[in-house]
Amino acid sequence: MSDVEHQEQLKGRYVQIDGNEWKPFPPPLAVGGITWKLLNVSPEMGSWAAIFDCPEGSSFHRHIHIGPGEYFLTKGKMNVRGGDEEGGTTAVAPGYGYEPCNARHDETHFTEDSEFYMTFLGPLHFIDEEGNTVAVVTWQDAQAAWEAS
Amino acid sequence: MSDVEHQEQLKGRYVQIDGNEWKPFPPPLAVGGITWKLLNVSPEMGSWAAIFDCPEGSSFHRHIHIGPGEYFLTKGKMNVRGGDEEGGTTAVAPGYGYEPCNARHDETHFTEDSEFYMTFLGPLHFIDEEGNTVAVVTWQDAQAAWEAS
Amino acid sequence: MSDVEHQEQLKGRYVQIDGNEWKPFPPPLAVGGITWKLLNVSPEMGSWAAIFDCPEGSSFHRHIHIGPGEYFLTKGKMNVRGGDEEGGTTAVAPGYGYEPCNARHDETHFTEDSEFYMTFLGPLHFIDEEGNTVAVVTWQDAQAAWEAS
Amino acid sequence: MSDVEHQEQLKGRYVQIDGNEWKPFPPPLAVGGITWKLLNVSPEMGSWAAIFDCPEGSSFHRHIHIGPGEYFLTKGKMNVRGGDEEGGTTAVAPGYGYEPCNARHDETHFTEDSEFYMTFLGPLHFIDEEGNTVAVVTWQDAQAAWEAS
Repeated sequence: MSDVEHQEQLKGRYVQIDGNEWKPFPPPLAVGGITWKLLNVSPEMGSWAAIFDCPEGSSFHRHIHIGPGEYFLTKGKMNVRGGDEEGGTTAVAPGYGYEPCNARHDETHFTEDSEFYMTFLGPLHFIDEEGNTVAVVTWQDAQAAWEAS
Repeated sequence: MSDVEHQEQLKGRYVQIDGNEWKPFPPPLAVGGITWKLLNVSPEMGSWAAIFDCPEGSSFHRHIHIGPGEYFLTKGKMNVRGGDEEGGTTAVAPGYGYEPCNARHDETHFTEDSEFYMTFLGPLHFIDEEGNTVAVVTWQDAQAAWEAS
Repeated sequence: MSDVEHQEQLKGRYVQIDGNEWKPFPPPLAVGGITWKLLNVSPEMGSWAAIFDCPEGSSFHRHIHIGPGEYFLTKGKMNVRGGDEEGGTTAVAPGYGYEPCNARHDETHFTEDSEFYMTFLGPLHFIDEEGNTVAVVTWQDAQAAWEAS
Repeated sequence: MSDVEHQEQLKGRYVQIDGNEWKPFPPPLAVGGITWKLLNVSPEMGSWAAIFDCPEGSSFHRHIHIGPGEYFLTKGKMNVRGGDEEGGTTAVAPGYGYEPCNARHDETHFTEDSEFYMTFLGPLHFIDEEGNTVAVVTWQDAQAAWEAS
């Protein structure tokens, strides 16, 4: 093939958030009853968007953001990177946070019932204490987990 | 210079949304009392994030999204591209929308008091009816408008 | 619609560069006989890639890079932002350059026969001396110009 | 902190490619004498750019492109995904290729002395035959490898 593939402009997409059920966020990745709704996956950039419901006492397991992530906390309180007391950030709704490419989140926990919307560029890289890979969760893995449940 | 500039990882950022006042969104770009809070600008990618408060009857002027934009409508009702009745989308809170690169928004209006959070990759290109440029609003212009008001 | 659209992984693309003819780069954007070959457009991100052949004495007209651009100069010499003598950069093959989001290029001229490959995130915003828009050249405009010629 | 951090526009960067020496590409990632020059890292997006010199008989080990990658083959012949004979692509200089987000490259080998320039969004995920992670090579790992050698 010697010529450039013709490409078309994409179409807009819409998801009625309350039209979908909350589903458990896959257990190897979180603990304490976190549920989520996937909202979008963008296969060319590898970005995705989701909303998370996090009961008091829940947390996400240790992970690295492979690309930048932006959250909008709409309810509750989220301790990012251990929270303010441990040199991280304690977000209080309504709060906005930008987590940069390669940010390592050893501890993300919720001391109140909370909810947040987040956009991700690239995968989440879940690791163990020594930094060994547990899982690299791409937009395709997020989509597969959503569709399977 | 013959070697690669060394780069450092970025730091996380946090904005307490209710710690800032709503400011008028610049009048040439909207009508009907829309106010906003800028939340982030990312100078390398050219992305930015903001939250908008849109009273009943307000609207944004005609524009093109130069890169993809994702919104999370938290309150009210937003008619995008004329809304459902004119072949566009009517978002009802809580709603999520993905507007692709080069999406043209001739009409974005609000028939109820509404609020939405949005992330933008690249500028908004405001145009007139014939498609002539009125303004190309980059992350730098958004930041300048926010800081000036 | 209340559920997320399923998306598929994209396929790889390949262009045999010497299988395509050089075509004139649209005259309002350059002077002195610059020709080009479009290599790719990415509709989701709004990025595109091309290779340019620039005879001695040619130049691109004043423009702003709406997103970051990276060039690989394979032949000749390119004066970017006026070149070293005017505070810009004089690239000499083989040279690599990163031009950031919102970089303004008042003068890009070639004092030798030159060739470079470049990837662009987002459009080129061609402007006049006062900064007024002459053209916003998106991936769709680049594709249309390529296909029309 | 309740207000948005002010951000400045980035500056342009330039690397005189022949001003740097070729360095061995880290051995766990390739075999057969591949050398490289890092050209740029972009910490916000997580993108990076490099040029690779690949002797006849060399190859890269099994990896996944975590984001899109674009190559410009300037010399020789590169068999991507096994090459044409095995359902992949055989690039012949001068050739351009777009490898999408999540493209899996089980075999990338060179049957002639070759050279290519490539831009990457996000890391390379090196895996074994069963798909287990060997290494996730981010822009920071690429930079560290370059600076260490």
